[in-house]
Amino acid sequence: MKLATIRLHNDDGAEGTRAVRVDGTTLVDLGAPDVAAVLATDGWRESAAAATGATYDATGADYAPLVPRPGKVVCVGLNYRNHILEMGRDLPEHPTLFSKYADTLIGAHDEIHRPVETEAFDWEAELTVVIGRSVRRADEEQAADAIAGFTVLNDITCRDWQFRTREWLQGKNWDHTTPVGPVLVTPDELPGGVRPALAISCEVDGELMQKDSTADLLFDPVALVQYVSTMIRLEPGDLIATGTPGGVGHARKPEVYLSAGQRVVTEIEGIGRLENVVVADPS
Amino acid sequence: MKLATIRLHNDDGAEGTRAVRVDGTTLVDLGAPDVAAVLATDGWRESAAAATGATYDATGADYAPLVPRPGKVVCVGLNYRNHILEMGRDLPEHPTLFSKYADTLIGAHDEIHRPVETEAFDWEAELTVVIGRSVRRADEEQAADAIAGFTVLNDITCRDWQFRTREWLQGKNWDHTTPVGPVLVTPDELPGGVRPALAISCEVDGELMQKDSTADLLFDPVALVQYVSTMIRLEPGDLIATGTPGGVGHARKPEVYLSAGQRVVTEIEGIGRLENVVVADPS
Repeated sequence: MKLATIRLHNDDGAEGTRAVRVDGTTLVDLGAPDVAAVLATDGWRESAAAATGATYDATGADYAPLVPRPGKVVCVGLNYRNHILEMGRDLPEHPTLFSKYADTLIGAHDEIHRPVETEAFDWEAELTVVIGRSVRRADEEQAADAIAGFTVLNDITCRDWQFRTREWLQGKNWDHTTPVGPVLVTPDELPGGVRPALAISCEVDGELMQKDSTADLLFDPVALVQYVSTMIRLEPGDLIATGTPGGVGHARKPEVYLSAGQRVVTEIEGIGRLENVVVADPS
Repeated sequence: MKLATIRLHNDDGAEGTRAVRVDGTTLVDLGAPDVAAVLATDGWRESAAAATGATYDATGADYAPLVPRPGKVVCVGLNYRNHILEMGRDLPEHPTLFSKYADTLIGAHDEIHRPVETEAFDWEAELTVVIGRSVRRADEEQAADAIAGFTVLNDITCRDWQFRTREWLQGKNWDHTTPVGPVLVTPDELPGGVRPALAISCEVDGELMQKDSTADLLFDPVALVQYVSTMIRLEPGDLIATGTPGGVGHARKPEVYLSAGQRVVTEIEGIGRLENVVVADPS
């Protein structure tokens, strides 16, 4: 099953969002404003699968951030084995965690706002866990069961601000920079299930920049849900971005960064594709 | 003017929160569920000052977190000049930022849940800015105007988890650990206004552990609002915890940490006092 949050536009310019089930080229209204509201409902898997509401055409759908206002966006630092080893680092014992505010999130086809204050605007394709059940100090089985599904996120980063201080937050939290979506795919539809083995990639203006398999994650989705839930209760709609593989612009020689006008395509096989154009921040 | 969010308990055990103005020992209902809802209203200063709703007795009031679900809790690392210099560090050029999730927050008299997973549970008294107006890329005047007022927060930290990796988040984000309140005080009531000069302290079981003046902040509240709003829009109810002075348990020789049963009193002169007992995490 695939779920999404779409924007509906009225004739008077007003805008609202709706949660939908994606049935091929048809979107079926789930009677809720967004995917988080669906996930917060007991028995959401069964009710979403059975829903027969209004339908919309998937062609040209306007995707909102999959979860517009998650209570938590937990991000993981170095987590792809190949990338860690190629950087000459030892495999870490614990995942490195930081966070994003919800204001950073944009939809699957929205413009990425490049701030005038950065000279080093970079990409990070990431498999992202969507939480579907409230869970604290989860054991392995509870953690697996708390995973509603997976989506795609690009943790667009201002490297100069990331490395101004020892904490990464200020490189990772610029308004309107982080596409997430277009859909949530439930684990039963993915090879590997809650530990999916999928090709992940990022292209900039058609040039392949990142290419790896999510099977290479050092801390897999189940392990991450267990780890994070040790400290804090995870709730439906919370997101865990699982880290990015090698190939970011900052690690290239010479370094390569994003400019206004460039198109970033972030894709995970079997889940979906983000297509976002970089624009000078209009705000 | 002082504002607070209190919990009301019905006979049937149901619970709700109300925003109130604190008039000495009388609490005046502001017709909103919490302080964030008040701050999101245009002209809140005038309407809150003029409100004449139901009243409650301040004696024995049950304080909720001042803002129960802030959209953002931005935290600042090293920020007291004396403390930075005594640690042998240079004064930094930029503030170090990390964040807390809303689930960490508790009320001014609530129990602090000490996780069984930590051996190094520490205190950090902090002056905290409460945002009262939506603002992005604020200049100095706009930043000053965006400060609704100040409150008290204790950034209780699991040091062992903080230093597991290079990012501090996992030491700072345990459920039900971070008291914030009891009240917001508007800048006009404080010496120094939006750059208040106030005694800040933390006591553990009556022993003075931290004592400094908020005038010693390297990055003052106005500068912090400007800096953070460069990257992300600040909204009413957002919090900026401005960092802690010297005297934390981790920096003592030998190190001193919190145990269940201890009482932590965090106070800022002219704002208020948090009194929280540490208990073994019951969850």
